[in-house]
Formats: sequence, C-alpha cells, structure tokens
Amino acid sequence: MTPKPLSFTILGTGALGGFYGSRLLMGGSVVRFVAHSDLELIREQGLRIESPLGNQHHLAVEVYSSADPIPASDVVCIALKTTQNHRLPELLKPLVREGTLILNLQNGLTLEEELAETFPQTRILAGLCFLCSNKVGPGHIRHLDYGRISFAALDERAGAWIPLLMETFGAGGIEVESLPSLRLARWQKLAWNIPFNGLSVLLGAETDALVTDPDARRLAKQLMDEVAAGAAACGVPFDAGFTGKLIEATERMTTYAPSMRLDYLAKRELEIEYLYLRPLREAAKRGVQLPAIEAIARQLSFVDRRNRADQGHG
Amino acid sequence: MTPKPLSFTILGTGALGGFYGSRLLMGGSVVRFVAHSDLELIREQGLRIESPLGNQHHLAVEVYSSADPIPASDVVCIALKTTQNHRLPELLKPLVREGTLILNLQNGLTLEEELAETFPQTRILAGLCFLCSNKVGPGHIRHLDYGRISFAALDERAGAWIPLLMETFGAGGIEVESLPSLRLARWQKLAWNIPFNGLSVLLGAETDALVTDPDARRLAKQLMDEVAAGAAACGVPFDAGFTGKLIEATERMTTYAPSMRLDYLAKRELEIEYLYLRPLREAAKRGVQLPAIEAIARQLSFVDRRNRADQGHG
Repeated sequence: MTPKPLSFTILGTGALGGFYGSRLLMGGSVVRFVAHSDLELIREQGLRIESPLGNQHHLAVEVYSSADPIPASDVVCIALKTTQNHRLPELLKPLVREGTLILNLQNGLTLEEELAETFPQTRILAGLCFLCSNKVGPGHIRHLDYGRISFAALDERAGAWIPLLMETFGAGGIEVESLPSLRLARWQKLAWNIPFNGLSVLLGAETDALVTDPDARRLAKQLMDEVAAGAAACGVPFDAGFTGKLIEATERMTTYAPSMRLDYLAKRELEIEYLYLRPLREAAKRGVQLPAIEAIARQLSFVDRRNRADQGHG
Repeated sequence: MTPKPLSFTILGTGALGGFYGSRLLMGGSVVRFVAHSDLELIREQGLRIESPLGNQHHLAVEVYSSADPIPASDVVCIALKTTQNHRLPELLKPLVREGTLILNLQNGLTLEEELAETFPQTRILAGLCFLCSNKVGPGHIRHLDYGRISFAALDERAGAWIPLLMETFGAGGIEVESLPSLRLARWQKLAWNIPFNGLSVLLGAETDALVTDPDARRLAKQLMDEVAAGAAACGVPFDAGFTGKLIEATERMTTYAPSMRLDYLAKRELEIEYLYLRPLREAAKRGVQLPAIEAIARQLSFVDRRNRADQGHG
C-alpha cells in the first residue's frame, strides 16, 4: 500500500509495548517508544529482550518522555496498564493528528468506545494480544510464549487498516488474525481473563493448579458462563460450547502466572476497572446481573487495597 | 421438673464443648465429656478454661473415650466439628437411649434433619451458639466473649424440653433464649456465618477489616442477601432489613477471627459441607441458585484442599 515503512509511537515499554515494539523494529518499521520510569536507562543501554524469537541485549531504540516533542507516527499503540487510562487523553492529544490510527493493545471492555469519545474523528483499532511476557526489570522484557494479535476495528473506517497492520506485525514475526466483531472479541477475551486473572490472585495459583483442581475449574467455568451471559445481554452471544472449549484449551496451555498475579506480587494496582467493573456495568445496563463476577471483583478490590497499603512493609 | 440435676454427655472437648460443659458443671449439672486426642491429658490434669466468667486451671471432669462404656445421660450434646459428622451415627448409638435428648450445638443446615433420619424416635434440639471461644492447646480453652445459646426444636415433642435446658444452662451463667422456628434460626445464623467465615479465610482478615472495607462489606451484604433468598425459597423468609441490621451489628462487635479462619490457620479441615454446600443444595432443590455463595464455596474447597495437602511443610 505505502512504500515507506509504517511508523509507530508506542505508549509503554512494559511486557507488551517493549515486546511488540521490538518486533516491529525487527520487521523494519519505524518505532518510537514513550517511556516513563526507565526512560534514562533505555536511552543509555537500549532495551533488553529475551524471547524464543531472538534475544537482544542492548537494542537501541528511539525513546521519548511524554513531555518531549515526538515526531508524528502513522500509528499510536496503547501498551500501558489500564490503571493509567485516566492519563490517556493528556498523553494521546499531542500524538493524535489527522490520519493517525490508534491501536489499543490493552485488555478490558469499553476501551475503544471511551477513546472514541475523546477522539471522535480518529480511527481506532483493538489488538487483542495472546501473549505471555513479563517485564522483569527496568528496560528488561522476558517474552515466554505465544504472541498472536487479533485485530478488530471499532468501525469500518478503521477496519480498512487491518490488512496493512497484519502485514507489518507479520513482518516482525508476530502471528496475526482479523476478527469481524470487536465487541464479541473483547467479551471472548474476558471469558479467559475474568476467571484466570482474578483467581490467580485470590487463590495464589497459576493456571495449571486452577484448571486441574475440580473446584477451581468449576468456578472458572461458572465465571466464564456469567461472561457468556453478559456477552449475550450485550448482543454478542458466544457459540454454544465456547466456554467448555476455553477450559480445555487452558488445560493444554503452558502454565503461567496471569498478568494480574504478577501485578499483585509486584504490589502494582490491579486492572479491576476495565476487566471486571466495566463488564458488570455493561451487563447491568441491560438488566443482567453477574453475581459471581461481582463477588470476585469485590474480593479483588479488597486485596488490591490492602496489598498497596502494605507497600511500605513489602 | 425433676429434683435430680440434669446429666449431660458432651461429644467434643473443643472451644464449644469444653466451654459449655464447664459452665454446666459450674451450674450443678452432671457432665460427662467424650474426648479424643486430649483424653489422657484431661484425665490427668483436668480442663483449663480461661473466661471472663472465671478461670479454671485444673477443672477435674469425668472424661471418657468413645470406646468406653459411658453412663446414660439425659442429654447428649454434639460439640464436634461438622467435618466429623460421618462418625455421628456410630458415636451416638451407644449414648442415645429411650428418653435421651440430643442437643446439637453445631453450625450449619440440615444437621437436625439428618440426625432425625438416624434416630427417628429421639427428641432433637438445636442450640445455636453465639460464642467467641478458641481451643488454644490440648484441654485448654480460651473463651473470649459472648456465649448466648438460642434453643430451637425440630418438633414440639423436643420443644417441651427447652424451658428446662434454659434453666440449666442459665444456672451455669449462660445467656439463653428460645426461638420458635429451627429452620429460620439456622438460616439466620448462616446469614452471618456464610460471609464472615468464608471471607475471613479467603481474604485473610478478621471481622473488623471486612466490615469496614467498602468492597468486603458490600460483598458480605451480597452474600447475606443470597442467604436471605435461600431462606425465602425454603419457606422461612427474613424480615425486611434483617441483613442490613446484621452488618451493622457486626460493626459493633469486638473484632475476632471466625472459627473457620482458626481452622484454616491450624490446617484443620474446613466446615464447608454444612455451612455452604447444604444451603446451596436446599435452595437448588427449590430452583433457586445462589451464585456468589457458590463461588465462595468453590474457592474455600480449593484453599482447604491445598492447605491440608501442605500440612507436611508446616
């Protein structure tokens, strides 16, 4: 489509942004990172990426502070924790110009709708990431497994960008696919995230312990079925058997600690708002209660508050 | 009614049986304890009771093993953990004769109905204990606060015994009351036990932390309201405002660790069956699901299994 390589500005140099940004760079794109706490370190030493796709010890990257003037990019990627989303309008405003595409790599519900309220003229895509990657230190990313991105558009206008993005990420060695319904894709992702993120924190267990214990597995299925009820209430019902297959797929997965568990262990704020409270709210607007998800969300809010209050003693 | 003092055989010398048995003894009743692990110690050194009602360092008591021939008593008190209830028919058979009353001091649902299946001719009372007492060592009970027993009968035949029992426990310094409906009383007790026992284990918190945190409090209320729905399904609806008042009453209580939390910390089996699974089953029989309680019960089953599997590692 365009002979020039695509340019990306990536908000966040964590497990998600650091990894995908480095893959885009490998694939020949222009990549500009916006970093916060590890800005100086990345500027001096570059990014350190460990990955089955190849290790980089000092990957030199273009890196900016959010206060810097940043050159205009074709695509602005959101790779921050959703706990930072109150800062998004301020962070995005200088980056979003006429023709800029916003690609949101976060997890949760109503993220793109909320962006569209602030940037009604802007094309917005979601990239749902099936990725197991951790930030293990400043500027240091450990990609363990997977990496697929499923693209879905808020509207047709943005959808026209999907083929080019698939090609561009594909050139960086990333598996890609395109999904027809953003809302269905978001709810289907929640069907995994709601049980396994929350229970990994509340029960202090990784995915294999949860999926092999009969009670934790039944509870995961109960939560998934409530997600399915929420999706149906919002007009995007799952196929029959979807949640059952998702449990079975989790059984075949390499065991790992979901990101919420890593956040909890690092005493970072948990992503409760977009992963739990928004789905509850969207279902409730349509008159549907999801009581087990509500119970889990309240437990998470309790442990999150205590966990961060304990920070000093950690 | 009878000039002779009443005689009691008390199954269990824990926080409940040890405390109430000692109070009955103080009040002039004949008391026979059936002990298991601390039989020899109690036989040699007596019971040690610490209580605002008075301390006893070496309270000499009649104590038996369940294999001993035990003299017939007027009342057999069940003060074992419900995790032992599979042993009840065998333990009770030699103790229950014509005219014996069974007084069940345990927490949970369908306890008396189950006893009535094994002992259809026997009069059965429930004594719902509002007690804060811990077993802190072999033969060593620490009573912290409260102690009221609310008596309720399975049928009118057993109900005729209530005044005499009230008088007898009252003579031992125990506050007593009589409740008209056993099933309503059991469900109302669950309205406190289901949230506060389970959450104290899952959230690792005592009652004050739970009731003052906005999310834990909302969750406790959500669970209580599901208990109310279960009670209504079983034909014993709560008064409007009951659960709200119960939350407020908990706020005014001395903070403490509910018994399930103590069991968890001591790596003892948790009383999930009669406190959670039976209420879920009774409601489900009437077509009512209690999804938040179900979620909590499944989490408890998971942590209980892991907790006891870890026993070897301390």
